[in-house]
Amino acid sequence: MSLLVVGSVAFDAVETPFGKRDQMLGGSASHFSISASFFTDVRVVAVVGGDFSSDELAVFAKHHVDTTDLEVVPDGETFRWFGRYEYDLNVAHTLDTHLNVFAGFEPKLSDASKNSRLVFLGNIQPDLQRGVRAQVPNAELVALDTMNLWIDTTRESLQKTIEVVDLLIVNDAEARQLAEEANLIKAARKILSWGPHTLIVKRGEYGAAMFTKDEYFAIPAYPLESVFDPTGAGDTFAGGFMGYLSSQETIDEAAMRRAMIFGSVMASFNVEEFGTERVRRLTHDEINERFRAFKRMTYFEEIPFERVAQATK
Amino acid sequence: MSLLVVGSVAFDAVETPFGKRDQMLGGSASHFSISASFFTDVRVVAVVGGDFSSDELAVFAKHHVDTTDLEVVPDGETFRWFGRYEYDLNVAHTLDTHLNVFAGFEPKLSDASKNSRLVFLGNIQPDLQRGVRAQVPNAELVALDTMNLWIDTTRESLQKTIEVVDLLIVNDAEARQLAEEANLIKAARKILSWGPHTLIVKRGEYGAAMFTKDEYFAIPAYPLESVFDPTGAGDTFAGGFMGYLSSQETIDEAAMRRAMIFGSVMASFNVEEFGTERVRRLTHDEINERFRAFKRMTYFEEIPFERVAQATK
Repeated sequence: MSLLVVGSVAFDAVETPFGKRDQMLGGSASHFSISASFFTDVRVVAVVGGDFSSDELAVFAKHHVDTTDLEVVPDGETFRWFGRYEYDLNVAHTLDTHLNVFAGFEPKLSDASKNSRLVFLGNIQPDLQRGVRAQVPNAELVALDTMNLWIDTTRESLQKTIEVVDLLIVNDAEARQLAEEANLIKAARKILSWGPHTLIVKRGEYGAAMFTKDEYFAIPAYPLESVFDPTGAGDTFAGGFMGYLSSQETIDEAAMRRAMIFGSVMASFNVEEFGTERVRRLTHDEINERFRAFKRMTYFEEIPFERVAQATK
Repeated sequence: MSLLVVGSVAFDAVETPFGKRDQMLGGSASHFSISASFFTDVRVVAVVGGDFSSDELAVFAKHHVDTTDLEVVPDGETFRWFGRYEYDLNVAHTLDTHLNVFAGFEPKLSDASKNSRLVFLGNIQPDLQRGVRAQVPNAELVALDTMNLWIDTTRESLQKTIEVVDLLIVNDAEARQLAEEANLIKAARKILSWGPHTLIVKRGEYGAAMFTKDEYFAIPAYPLESVFDPTGAGDTFAGGFMGYLSSQETIDEAAMRRAMIFGSVMASFNVEEFGTERVRRLTHDEINERFRAFKRMTYFEEIPFERVAQATK
């Protein structure tokens, strides 16, 4: 009963209006697994170079993240991303990308990984994602992330990958672009018709929405007075979401809704500091406190209106 | 115990990708009062010209909207707005505006109007709004709408007006512009420090949020597959919100939260057809059905996470 993530493990160099870091642990699989580790046991399938040090491995170890399938290429270098945010922290400006060992990434799953109950296919090339998906035929739920790059350059392959997963997690703009449909509700209906039973749409400061064939669930974001570094927020959300589901015996609509909240809680912490710095030192009390805050900020009494005076026809 | 609205009554000519209307009943006071009429008794303070016909008056009459303070200038013409929406229905393009009799509008309140329990100051020049506010010193709650035009051209007067009302209703961009603060949560805190005890921020397809000193409440929008004509959605929201509050004996946080839902319900109907066409023929059953839909789409069980297996420190 465990959770598998396939994605990138990277060194990020990030500059925001509030400060900078030259080299910190990043990548989709890092953000995802550290977030998910608060709820369940996680295995990581990824690749790093010989420059990946024991300090970074210690972060995974501290969070009981299983790195058996973290391939190390001793004479290669770890994937590096150089990004900058202006005051509009919604837009990441990529200054440079050194794929390094990630360019030749071929996900290799141990038998234990192949038997994972839940699988998250982080944002990598769709052919690779589909290759991994084929190796986990018995997974109860396989979730997929992607990005505009793959919609632009490998739409056909991406479409095939979407057809064989259970759940797609994308942002607002990606959902519209993917479905070629400006109205998000119509876009969601179209995407669900391709195969996934669930679509989750991340909306940044506006929260997130979950679409299934018969249900719609939408939540606001946690209100933050300052966003420090949004890098990895999406993967941290996915980690909280999938991690929580992995902790539950039954994955039904009610569990998925709570998972949406835990995902949002984790993402809200992620953006408060650089990289994984805030999430790393979270406590379950802090997580649950913010979960309860979500309840308080969305609750209203279900009392329909009854006109007592003269009725308007 | 009634609700007063001061604003515009107009003829709108609207073109959207889905059709057009050359002349239909519009203006903030029209949208507001028809929406509010489903919940309470409404009085309108506005001005129209001799071209305002018995057909339009019949619409108000049918909804029991009191038009005693609707001034008619027989030799003048009613305010006309000519607008167009492209496929991005979030942006209204004003093609032309004929202020006509609205240019010389001086709101005149009868004694009955002056004794209204609740007052909505629709989007007009801030000096006029403040003049009306001074005439309703005993109102339990005075709400204010405004727009970017007044922020740009009459900021000082607008600020003074905001200082003397209880509640401000604006959209996302207006709140940020008003507070000169990109972060909405900080912007809200700043605006509340000027005097109003409540700020409501409308976010279009992303829903709405309500800020008070100690509470935060946020809801998604009703998911619509097609938006036909967004004209008047904001005033229709305000009408549902204030109308519902007016129907309640006690105006507390819980009532305000339900009012947010009823406002959103009314706005969601408004955009389904041209102008006031859809709202005019609503039934209370339809309103309550959509109210319940809001509960379904925002509900989750408050079950904090408890890690049963090995704990992560």
